[in-house]
Amino acid sequence: MSEFLYGRWPVLEALRAARRPLEQLLLADSVEEREIVTEITSAAETRGVAVRRVPRRVLDDLAKDANHQGVVLRAGAYPYADMQELFRTSVERQEKNFYLVLDLLQDPQNVGSLLRVADAVGVHGIILQERRGVGVTPAVVAASSGAVEHLRVAQVNNLVNALKELKSNDVWVVGLDLGPNIPPIDRTDLNINLALVLGSEGEGLRRLVRDTCDMLVTLPMRGKVGSLNVATTGAVALYRAWQARGWQGWAYAG
Amino acid sequence: MSEFLYGRWPVLEALRAARRPLEQLLLADSVEEREIVTEITSAAETRGVAVRRVPRRVLDDLAKDANHQGVVLRAGAYPYADMQELFRTSVERQEKNFYLVLDLLQDPQNVGSLLRVADAVGVHGIILQERRGVGVTPAVVAASSGAVEHLRVAQVNNLVNALKELKSNDVWVVGLDLGPNIPPIDRTDLNINLALVLGSEGEGLRRLVRDTCDMLVTLPMRGKVGSLNVATTGAVALYRAWQARGWQGWAYAG
Repeated sequence: MSEFLYGRWPVLEALRAARRPLEQLLLADSVEEREIVTEITSAAETRGVAVRRVPRRVLDDLAKDANHQGVVLRAGAYPYADMQELFRTSVERQEKNFYLVLDLLQDPQNVGSLLRVADAVGVHGIILQERRGVGVTPAVVAASSGAVEHLRVAQVNNLVNALKELKSNDVWVVGLDLGPNIPPIDRTDLNINLALVLGSEGEGLRRLVRDTCDMLVTLPMRGKVGSLNVATTGAVALYRAWQARGWQGWAYAG
Repeated sequence: MSEFLYGRWPVLEALRAARRPLEQLLLADSVEEREIVTEITSAAETRGVAVRRVPRRVLDDLAKDANHQGVVLRAGAYPYADMQELFRTSVERQEKNFYLVLDLLQDPQNVGSLLRVADAVGVHGIILQERRGVGVTPAVVAASSGAVEHLRVAQVNNLVNALKELKSNDVWVVGLDLGPNIPPIDRTDLNINLALVLGSEGEGLRRLVRDTCDMLVTLPMRGKVGSLNVATTGAVALYRAWQARGWQGWAYAG
């Protein structure tokens, strides 16, 4: 079934990545062809995607009233990867494995934000559980600024089994958790074959998921307000992990 | 002039902090008194704040259709601090100075999210420029989960002058920037008298602000999508700074 991706950056990245079937580009009749819109139409041309002008309210409907910025792309379903593809990606990159695992996150904004960071730090793949948690919906694509179009995302039936598969492939499964007696994230060397696991908003890691982790780490807090958004803690943890790898893959000219 | 703070956590934190004049607590007539709502009404009672039940649509109006969760607090203006108060706070805490400076950020969601992290890592104060950038509005209070009610926020006429005042008080002004030849954030020792400066969404640091910084640092990126949200980069940088201070003020029981 076709999906309707929306927003200028998300649509441009979907056209650039070209991993989905790309069916039609819809532009609001009021949108001027300049700056990024020119990049979008030229990317559509390169990919052989037809462009159609439509009234803005048609886009409002297709994007379910989200902020589409006058640009909607009709495209095929998101091309999920499988676990084998994630393992292959690590081999191809010639780096220690680097995965992000999301345990039943619910908010597309949080998931999108984490995927954008996952792209920035160069994770090799993301693992989500099918059903109950959010998948790669157009809202997630938008919140990731299109980054997810370039990422390898595996959706699995059973997250605990996926973690066990990681472990049997010599990947360390590290859960981010809250609570006393959990060491701060900088006490653990994250320059390892790593899968970082984040729990859902409010609930955190499910018990079985937590019990399957090889290690738990925490992000210290000392404020009056007792919690942080999972997108924030995940971003800090992902950056901490990449820093532990010496910013591998980033060229510093200084 | 009165302001209308909204949302359960934001209102509870405003009642707990009690730094503003607290005028009246408004609850939607459908809201049940249990869990956090009980904490809110009991905090209101402790502070001598009258509670009134009103139809939900009254709250919709007062909160300008934001998600108020059936709870609105009529309160006085936000009690801004001045620079002297920020300096005093560092002395009282007996820690090296630790400030966050926001250069004309526009999005209440970003500012609120950064303030929540500022609370979590224990910054001593935040500096904003008056006008053109966002101030501490009810939307910012909500996005900070109420954390800003406990924080010292100074609004200054001229941000460059404020940075110079910091420098003449032996505080190092460190700007977070993008670009080649800027060292990654872990190459700079942030266990110093520190003011971390973040630029606005899209524009980054203004030239004069950048030129006034003692040092620039960057957050490496290696993704296909070329940028991160300022709330994300700021969160990573604030945590990096606190980590450099050895998680000062956090008790690790492990």
